[in-house]
Amino acid sequence: MADKKLGVWLVGGCGNVAATAILGLVGLQKKLAPTTGLVTELSDFSALPLAEWDDLVIAGHDIRTPNLRATVGRLANEQVVPRELVEACGDELSEIDARIKPGIAYKAGDAIRALADVSVDDDATTAPRTLVSRLQNDLESFIEANDLRGAVVVNVASTEPPLASELPERWEAFDALLDEPGAAIPASTLYAVAALELGLPFVNFTPSAGASFPAVEELAKRKKICHAGQDGKTGETLMKTVLAPMFAERNLEVLSWVGHNIFGNLDGRILDNPENRAAKVATKDRVVGGTLGYDPQTLVSIEYIESLGDWKTAWDHIHFRGFLGTLMTLQFTWQGCDSALAAPLVLDLVRLVDVARRAGEVGAVTSLAAFFKRPLGADCHDFARQHARLLEWIRSTAQQMG
Amino acid sequence: MADKKLGVWLVGGCGNVAATAILGLVGLQKKLAPTTGLVTELSDFSALPLAEWDDLVIAGHDIRTPNLRATVGRLANEQVVPRELVEACGDELSEIDARIKPGIAYKAGDAIRALADVSVDDDATTAPRTLVSRLQNDLESFIEANDLRGAVVVNVASTEPPLASELPERWEAFDALLDEPGAAIPASTLYAVAALELGLPFVNFTPSAGASFPAVEELAKRKKICHAGQDGKTGETLMKTVLAPMFAERNLEVLSWVGHNIFGNLDGRILDNPENRAAKVATKDRVVGGTLGYDPQTLVSIEYIESLGDWKTAWDHIHFRGFLGTLMTLQFTWQGCDSALAAPLVLDLVRLVDVARRAGEVGAVTSLAAFFKRPLGADCHDFARQHARLLEWIRSTAQQMG
Amino acid sequence: MADKKLGVWLVGGCGNVAATAILGLVGLQKKLAPTTGLVTELSDFSALPLAEWDDLVIAGHDIRTPNLRATVGRLANEQVVPRELVEACGDELSEIDARIKPGIAYKAGDAIRALADVSVDDDATTAPRTLVSRLQNDLESFIEANDLRGAVVVNVASTEPPLASELPERWEAFDALLDEPGAAIPASTLYAVAALELGLPFVNFTPSAGASFPAVEELAKRKKICHAGQDGKTGETLMKTVLAPMFAERNLEVLSWVGHNIFGNLDGRILDNPENRAAKVATKDRVVGGTLGYDPQTLVSIEYIESLGDWKTAWDHIHFRGFLGTLMTLQFTWQGCDSALAAPLVLDLVRLVDVARRAGEVGAVTSLAAFFKRPLGADCHDFARQHARLLEWIRSTAQQMG
Amino acid sequence: MADKKLGVWLVGGCGNVAATAILGLVGLQKKLAPTTGLVTELSDFSALPLAEWDDLVIAGHDIRTPNLRATVGRLANEQVVPRELVEACGDELSEIDARIKPGIAYKAGDAIRALADVSVDDDATTAPRTLVSRLQNDLESFIEANDLRGAVVVNVASTEPPLASELPERWEAFDALLDEPGAAIPASTLYAVAALELGLPFVNFTPSAGASFPAVEELAKRKKICHAGQDGKTGETLMKTVLAPMFAERNLEVLSWVGHNIFGNLDGRILDNPENRAAKVATKDRVVGGTLGYDPQTLVSIEYIESLGDWKTAWDHIHFRGFLGTLMTLQFTWQGCDSALAAPLVLDLVRLVDVARRAGEVGAVTSLAAFFKRPLGADCHDFARQHARLLEWIRSTAQQMG
Repeated sequence: MADKKLGVWLVGGCGNVAATAILGLVGLQKKLAPTTGLVTELSDFSALPLAEWDDLVIAGHDIRTPNLRATVGRLANEQVVPRELVEACGDELSEIDARIKPGIAYKAGDAIRALADVSVDDDATTAPRTLVSRLQNDLESFIEANDLRGAVVVNVASTEPPLASELPERWEAFDALLDEPGAAIPASTLYAVAALELGLPFVNFTPSAGASFPAVEELAKRKKICHAGQDGKTGETLMKTVLAPMFAERNLEVLSWVGHNIFGNLDGRILDNPENRAAKVATKDRVVGGTLGYDPQTLVSIEYIESLGDWKTAWDHIHFRGFLGTLMTLQFTWQGCDSALAAPLVLDLVRLVDVARRAGEVGAVTSLAAFFKRPLGADCHDFARQHARLLEWIRSTAQQMG
Repeated sequence: MADKKLGVWLVGGCGNVAATAILGLVGLQKKLAPTTGLVTELSDFSALPLAEWDDLVIAGHDIRTPNLRATVGRLANEQVVPRELVEACGDELSEIDARIKPGIAYKAGDAIRALADVSVDDDATTAPRTLVSRLQNDLESFIEANDLRGAVVVNVASTEPPLASELPERWEAFDALLDEPGAAIPASTLYAVAALELGLPFVNFTPSAGASFPAVEELAKRKKICHAGQDGKTGETLMKTVLAPMFAERNLEVLSWVGHNIFGNLDGRILDNPENRAAKVATKDRVVGGTLGYDPQTLVSIEYIESLGDWKTAWDHIHFRGFLGTLMTLQFTWQGCDSALAAPLVLDLVRLVDVARRAGEVGAVTSLAAFFKRPLGADCHDFARQHARLLEWIRSTAQQMG
Repeated sequence: MADKKLGVWLVGGCGNVAATAILGLVGLQKKLAPTTGLVTELSDFSALPLAEWDDLVIAGHDIRTPNLRATVGRLANEQVVPRELVEACGDELSEIDARIKPGIAYKAGDAIRALADVSVDDDATTAPRTLVSRLQNDLESFIEANDLRGAVVVNVASTEPPLASELPERWEAFDALLDEPGAAIPASTLYAVAALELGLPFVNFTPSAGASFPAVEELAKRKKICHAGQDGKTGETLMKTVLAPMFAERNLEVLSWVGHNIFGNLDGRILDNPENRAAKVATKDRVVGGTLGYDPQTLVSIEYIESLGDWKTAWDHIHFRGFLGTLMTLQFTWQGCDSALAAPLVLDLVRLVDVARRAGEVGAVTSLAAFFKRPLGADCHDFARQHARLLEWIRSTAQQMG
Repeated sequence: MADKKLGVWLVGGCGNVAATAILGLVGLQKKLAPTTGLVTELSDFSALPLAEWDDLVIAGHDIRTPNLRATVGRLANEQVVPRELVEACGDELSEIDARIKPGIAYKAGDAIRALADVSVDDDATTAPRTLVSRLQNDLESFIEANDLRGAVVVNVASTEPPLASELPERWEAFDALLDEPGAAIPASTLYAVAALELGLPFVNFTPSAGASFPAVEELAKRKKICHAGQDGKTGETLMKTVLAPMFAERNLEVLSWVGHNIFGNLDGRILDNPENRAAKVATKDRVVGGTLGYDPQTLVSIEYIESLGDWKTAWDHIHFRGFLGTLMTLQFTWQGCDSALAAPLVLDLVRLVDVARRAGEVGAVTSLAAFFKRPLGADCHDFARQHARLLEWIRSTAQQMG
């Protein structure tokens, strides 16, 4: 089995993040891309038995007709990925297109459903279980057809609106609910259930609900499989979790922290929808108070500015009080390319949860908190502490597996 | 002896940092100032047997005629300290004035010597040992007159130019050199020698040489006394040591890091002098490469802009490369009040080196690296790691002294 | 009559802008304040027969109990005005307090009505004409009691929500509506009507409706009196009207212009209310497209961040396209003190509309467009052209009156 | 003659600005490039009898071996110009290569001379007149070979160091000096002399001396030909001349204006040389005081940061005082592509000085001040006034030529 390859199943396989990850992986496999931005390529990680880039096979689901060549061509125009790489990898991208299957948009909200150009399930009359079964068929066929030793399922699809109603806390009731037509369980969670039931690890790189429910955690534990999430920490929030501890450790009192984010990719267009944005703002906004231990006034805004494309600019203004009450200010402007920041972390997480699975971890892998805005099962938002914990996990896991 | 008070001897006792620290300490003693900005007031430090604020007695040296009321009045005009506090502490400031003795400016460079309005030693004909003896007399008189259990000497004077020539590596030869008229040992080092020879801890909060020579380290070890330095980490450099690890841990390649500092206090006026600036830039500039493990292009400029007074504005521009070569940018603007950032750390360091001394530490206290731009005896510039080490030191020291 | 003084009647006389203007005027009269920030003190204006500062007598309306000493004391704490000036002008401020009469909040929206600590008119049952008459009595008493040659009424009160319904276009119908209990004519317009009917000039320094209706313009023409407005151009919008022409004149295509404003004074608290904010955003947002001649994507946000007090920080991000399609960016951060920027313009406008009135101008004084975000009767937002027009008006008016 | 084409002779024809201008012109001629960034394409200019893009023929001098395809390829990599355009214009670029002749570097300083890969004149033994004659031969051959109605010579070469010694004020003495071997007249001035003696207009887009000497102005008048300069106003300085008038017209007192420029192109590498930088800083620094009418503290720094390539980032910090002494701050960050900003202005100036020549203008064309950091013959730096003057010139010139 060690000789078999590992599947990478991307939910939202046609989006910018997926396309950048796919192009990057092909580039790594063809020795055309450097390893910059890949955390697992740092020397600290060399003790782990990570899957080789050559051993990864990519596929996925999407509610749009796949055309990865066109997508990365657009990304090259937006200066997100290099045109030479796009031109060198055309054949591989077309092959991957053929492995991207029609996804689901069940209870994913109007903004997301409006993106679909494949036929999507009716929100009112479909029983979620039907969809889970369809997803599982796709996953099993992929594994069988490619003779894989398994697969890691990663959600990089658009952000769903937050759930209005409560879901059952125990798996048994949750499982029963899956059979009810129109039951309010969002697509991201159905993907999680589909993966975990098959004993495949699930990674939720988005703010959508995914595996964040107690019942799904129970499912993971029953199936003795691990998962990780939620919402990849790539830019402004990463900065917050790096800077907030500095204020705390210097006993400087943060009075207010304003973050204003503007960008123009599809993710931004979906988040321009107030209900979808609510989910995102929730994961971005809690880290400051969580790190400081008190709650200064915070404000996070996310705005869709079309001309910026995939380039996200965040302006943060931090107002703080020092010795003898003196008021001071820190401002930063982060000009990052969203997909180029997210894509390598997606590839890193595939490798890391694969190791976690092989090491026998069950439920949310809290040692991977450094990768997420809202780390499942972990309280700490302080990036340096999260990183220290990750290093400790590497040491103990390497020792255990060694 | 536990009932006796502790002296705080400030070299440069009339400067902005000293005046803010003094006003703050008086405010703390009179319960008129909050503890914001004081690191040792954080709960992590409660396990240590720190000196109480009421148990500190302040004095110092300066080459200017002391007039603390005038100095803090000016700082109140510049909105560095609150006017109400200034008005409430006038009597105490006048008392402290009487304890500030004429300092030395030996080999401190023309820019600093030009500040003196007390008579200063001749650079060519004075034997440094004479000056050390005079300083020691002042320190001993202070301790005796106030029945103190000792004193911590802290250098917060203006930045001297870097030393042109080499000094002897062993204490014996260094000691002999002190007797040579015109020997090139700068004032900051004479203060360090004066303190350490008397068995008093020395803290160098400036980029000046101070106790950074091997011979002086040897003296400290012979006298079984500790010291700490060099150059307090208060603003832009603190930010660098917080942010650079983030880039390293995300495998993002920093291509260039430009830092542009403008401010208008006396420190700025002295640093506007190229030879004095050289010392400062050296301590500010090494941290980026030191943390990243490679050397991107860096540039640090420090400019005297009179209208800004004590308010230091730093603009940093960090250009970095991510996945697939994508170029991105982080900029920050730090608008901090230099003295309000430095002063509480001065008070913190007094308490901490006093604990270190009582715990029997000898030589440079490397566990205090988090406080300095160029931590003596420590290689690590990563603020989070420095902080973790500090917490570890608190634990072990508390246990030992418990 | 040339020997008589001129009244200045401030609507919202207890607010930050009014208090700063009042303190400033008293300071000018006592020769304690410099003329920085006062446009009419520039040499270009010396040809005009401007009222002397000593010849102005201040009074006003407010829906809060006046306590100017307390207000300017708070502003001194927020470092908006110098404490020394506050201390020197206490008696004069108390005198002015006595001249501030209870104002009206008719149809001014819940956020504003909630501020009132004087008894305010019932929105449903009051006939607006009753309120107008009361305001006119106050104005006439003020003029008579102080033996004034007239008064200029300036609205510096909080921003009302935009009007939901249409108002009659002709004065006759409008006048009739004033007699209907509960008629939807907002307070700012009643102040305008009160002033203009008495033949007193009216200046609307806010985004509230004021004299912006055709029927009120007709009233002004019937009464042969002038007025000016709307919404003083002090900070971010001033910048926009200075920068947008640069892009236009260099044929650089603005793709998007995002402006994010944060501040924490009462104005900010009122504007944190979506309906009040709508009026403000409307006047701030139209200038970019108005100047460029096409409509790039624009976004203006205004957020109440309490810790900032009267200090408004605006971050603007302008994305533009240059030669051969190259995308570039300009960002600016404006850190201004709102009241200190607005107050001198209020005093300037008093002098200028007084001159306009004496020169016989009738209706909206379009030559004063440079002072306003939404200049009544003028299309041009380009600050340089507005300024050129102002200079031309000075020349012609000086000649006419000379 | 109206049917003949017009030559454009670029001094520094292989540099980034020249290459971008050339690529842009070819793109305009092939209808592949939009007119964004070209001032003369604005409707205000339609009244002028401007040369058509199709009627321009490009050539030039350079001290490097021409390879425009390689240069624009590199610019495409740096995202300065679009790759598609580069690919479409290869043949035309090769043709233009053949028209770029070996230039001169006489008295141009070591940094520039080190760039040369063609043989350059000896600084000590060459008589400048010999070089002028060679340049004139090249120009005459170009005009004859292409049957042109004339040519405009534009200097876009690297910035020379400022001149150490004085030059004769009258043309007669200056002319005599040209015959002296080793006479200290820099290359840029020899190009100007070469052009003007032939009756060809000269445009100095750089801070180099060029035609800025009284003797050269006299030559232009004798020859009845016009010229324009100096140092194209493209980014940070443009901003200064737009913003400084705003402060002046609002009577806000600028206390300090700091501008920090970083970029990484060849121009930046040359300017990293202190003597060359001195010339540039001089033209950038004078505009603030020139516009305000008083001299606040100013500071301009220009630093070579290799990773930025042609992208220039300028951070400006403006500290100003408002009403009642309140201190406020404006900061801006300009992220512009130097060549994409400069190139269209070069093409605009060719068209405009050609019109000026045909309209009979003689000497420095002061009406073109809006294009220059240090407008020859004009005192005014205020961009809006310069623009108003330009519009007036268009009107009067169109009328005269109409």
